[in-house]
Amino acid sequence: MNRQLSEIAELIGAEYSGHEDMGIYGLAKIEEGKPGYLSFIANDKFESFLYTTQSSAVIVKQGFEPKQLLDAKLLYVDDVYSAVAKVSKLFAHTHDIEVGISPLTYVATSSSISEDPRIAAQSYIGKNCTIGKNVVIYPQVFIDDHCTIGDNVVLYSGVKIYHNCIIGNNVILHSNAVIGSDGFGFASSAEVGISKIEQLGNVVLGNDVEIGAGSTIDRATMGSTRLGNFVKIDNLVHIAHNVQIGDYTFIAAQTGVAGSTKIGKCCMIGGQVGILGHIEIADFTSIQAKSGIGGHVKNSHTKLYGYPAIDYSAYLKSYAYFKQLPEMAQKLRKLENKLADN
Amino acid sequence: MNRQLSEIAELIGAEYSGHEDMGIYGLAKIEEGKPGYLSFIANDKFESFLYTTQSSAVIVKQGFEPKQLLDAKLLYVDDVYSAVAKVSKLFAHTHDIEVGISPLTYVATSSSISEDPRIAAQSYIGKNCTIGKNVVIYPQVFIDDHCTIGDNVVLYSGVKIYHNCIIGNNVILHSNAVIGSDGFGFASSAEVGISKIEQLGNVVLGNDVEIGAGSTIDRATMGSTRLGNFVKIDNLVHIAHNVQIGDYTFIAAQTGVAGSTKIGKCCMIGGQVGILGHIEIADFTSIQAKSGIGGHVKNSHTKLYGYPAIDYSAYLKSYAYFKQLPEMAQKLRKLENKLADN
Amino acid sequence: MNRQLSEIAELIGAEYSGHEDMGIYGLAKIEEGKPGYLSFIANDKFESFLYTTQSSAVIVKQGFEPKQLLDAKLLYVDDVYSAVAKVSKLFAHTHDIEVGISPLTYVATSSSISEDPRIAAQSYIGKNCTIGKNVVIYPQVFIDDHCTIGDNVVLYSGVKIYHNCIIGNNVILHSNAVIGSDGFGFASSAEVGISKIEQLGNVVLGNDVEIGAGSTIDRATMGSTRLGNFVKIDNLVHIAHNVQIGDYTFIAAQTGVAGSTKIGKCCMIGGQVGILGHIEIADFTSIQAKSGIGGHVKNSHTKLYGYPAIDYSAYLKSYAYFKQLPEMAQKLRKLENKLADN
Repeated sequence: MNRQLSEIAELIGAEYSGHEDMGIYGLAKIEEGKPGYLSFIANDKFESFLYTTQSSAVIVKQGFEPKQLLDAKLLYVDDVYSAVAKVSKLFAHTHDIEVGISPLTYVATSSSISEDPRIAAQSYIGKNCTIGKNVVIYPQVFIDDHCTIGDNVVLYSGVKIYHNCIIGNNVILHSNAVIGSDGFGFASSAEVGISKIEQLGNVVLGNDVEIGAGSTIDRATMGSTRLGNFVKIDNLVHIAHNVQIGDYTFIAAQTGVAGSTKIGKCCMIGGQVGILGHIEIADFTSIQAKSGIGGHVKNSHTKLYGYPAIDYSAYLKSYAYFKQLPEMAQKLRKLENKLADN
Repeated sequence: MNRQLSEIAELIGAEYSGHEDMGIYGLAKIEEGKPGYLSFIANDKFESFLYTTQSSAVIVKQGFEPKQLLDAKLLYVDDVYSAVAKVSKLFAHTHDIEVGISPLTYVATSSSISEDPRIAAQSYIGKNCTIGKNVVIYPQVFIDDHCTIGDNVVLYSGVKIYHNCIIGNNVILHSNAVIGSDGFGFASSAEVGISKIEQLGNVVLGNDVEIGAGSTIDRATMGSTRLGNFVKIDNLVHIAHNVQIGDYTFIAAQTGVAGSTKIGKCCMIGGQVGILGHIEIADFTSIQAKSGIGGHVKNSHTKLYGYPAIDYSAYLKSYAYFKQLPEMAQKLRKLENKLADN
Repeated sequence: MNRQLSEIAELIGAEYSGHEDMGIYGLAKIEEGKPGYLSFIANDKFESFLYTTQSSAVIVKQGFEPKQLLDAKLLYVDDVYSAVAKVSKLFAHTHDIEVGISPLTYVATSSSISEDPRIAAQSYIGKNCTIGKNVVIYPQVFIDDHCTIGDNVVLYSGVKIYHNCIIGNNVILHSNAVIGSDGFGFASSAEVGISKIEQLGNVVLGNDVEIGAGSTIDRATMGSTRLGNFVKIDNLVHIAHNVQIGDYTFIAAQTGVAGSTKIGKCCMIGGQVGILGHIEIADFTSIQAKSGIGGHVKNSHTKLYGYPAIDYSAYLKSYAYFKQLPEMAQKLRKLENKLADN
């Protein structure tokens, strides 16, 4: 289904005059542009593609001045990514799951499902669950007993939610994400050997949370593992028992957070970061990919890098000298020889 | 269901006298204590919460002396975590899967299932499998042909076990764990290009093993990938083909062990550690989170840290100087200038 | 089922004369050899096992000269691993899924399935899919609408493929791999807050691709995330939106590649590597395990190591001095003192 360029311009509040209107069939990366498609430039690096792209129109930042005449029409906006996010919704894939509850899925009679569900075959909803309005549940999802699922939630195929967990509104869980698995807790003593500490708590996800494919969020030992509103988690991330994550914090792929750590709001955490247990990370902390965080982060807006992590620019400086260590060692030897000669 | 405090005290061998008895409804973290709940202090850091907690009773270490009068009753034990582990079992969630084999699950007729199974709908048990007593199999579990599953095993939803694998007694596999997937083995030659080496072995898990959500244990190329008794593996861990892991070894989340490596018993391996293939790690080795182990560890009780890992305290010392590298470089330049002036 | 040694020798083009023929029951590691089994030595390290192995025959490299008399028969070949790969296929497990489409699986009527399928119970194939010849689909697989699956593809239990993805011929996807989940893309602005960028593209896997258990390959934001022919991916690997990977590139377990990065052909990427987004990695690049790649790799045949990664041997050299930093600092202090005394 195509959309009129004028409709798109209005949606994103773009200046739009003097153009003939035209149908737009979708979004395309500018370097892969096609006639009838809309592209965008959010980063000057990609400007060169503008002059060769086949796309019919391009979203650019207010004030942008092309260096040559263009075939493509330009739509000027204040914030390119926000405009792209809006346009992307026009062309979004609609979930193919049919309205209703498939008779080939299992729903315990004690569970209640609100209006307008789309629940596919081969899923399983345990006892005493409450499922909100307008949910989409793909095949092969498992929801154990006593769970609460909010409105407008999308559970992709293979999602597994253990008992007693609470999922907010507008949450998206991608395939094979696991919510509420046991925390890693054992007691070991000479007397009894290794003994499992039963994990008695649950997981609570706020509203508008998105969790990537294959990520695992462990239940609390006691109390709740808790992700705030608008927390966005990428693929294959591990969140341990009793972790608390503040609103609007983003965590990139393959990062792990150990037990009972509290992460503030609006943090930006790169991929493959490891965060120690039982520590607190201040709001607006930014952590470079692959860093290892081994202690509290007390000041907000801290930027960290390294293993173990230190101040971002301090790490870069030290690492610059790390690369020169062989030369430094040689200079040191020369000085020693020189002084020995004296 | 609540338990009497006196019953709990007896269970954990706590001193208990002079208290009125009372009902206990569960365990709570001391900082989240509630009336009618039992908390614990295993770490002095948390002592301050003792004086403000709402919990009705608190487990503390033998010899602990509170600094002020308390409302909460104290239960004195030798080993707090072991006591908590015992009490946690009193309040553990019981698996909601009903006794019997759901008619909505698939069990090949050539497979045998011992007494008292609880096997939910939507699971699949292939040919010639032997399933022990008192197992719990959640929905959407897959067990391929020729597998042996021990007694008292719990397989959470989404567990996948490839053919010919052997699972010991009292094993717990969390959601979406994969046992017996192919090892990563290819031959590449000018003549035939890339050719898959078929993975002909299997996986053998000992008794009392627990494997976290989303972890993957590859089958052996030939022979067995083998985890000993009481091996505990956290979430999203990767164990490659032909790895051997000794009894009582713990591995935290997102760690990976490459092919054919032998890890001793009673090792403590942190999260996001990477371990090279074809090496041996001695018993009681302790590895700091995120370390990279690139060679044999010959002495037991070794403590390692770094990338690549070296002795734990040596890494800490070197890293302390790493942080001072810019100053060291400056000092070096000054000395060079001073000597050049001479 | 056993095979004659003469048949195996012919298959791998091994010199074979003067031996009595015999039945071979399978492959065994040389240190775990058993009578009636065939072993191999690809690495001199394992030569000592040759003199004690119980195996009846051993594949060795052309020109190898045993240091003592042997019970085992030797088969001489040019390339041991290629020979092992060939022999492994003789003893490979055959998929136990029966020929046909299980009536207990769901296939939308608008989808077409070519000849000789083996599709097990409890799987789900959405609308308008095209499934090639001779596929094997294990239980609990999910294929969303509008997907194309090539010939001879094997999808293990728990594989999830989102809508519109294209899977080439001879592809193997291991359990719980996820293909086509949403890329991690959000716009954030003061005006609208956090807004999801809908992920409109797809994933295209070339021929002969193999993806390990639990790995996740995100769909493109626009266009395609693309893996070339013969790309081999280990377990728990994360490939972000719009990544391009060239033919014959291997990626070991738990590595992550961030969005829009282009990796060349024939690269060897170790485990737990992190690769930044929006960069290009030249052909034949080799990356040491756990490295962090933060910039373009322009020259082919580059070998990288470190965090952030630098030239492989430069990192080793610098790291050797890193370990000596405490001594270097002490020497520096001594020199300072000496010069201060002057």
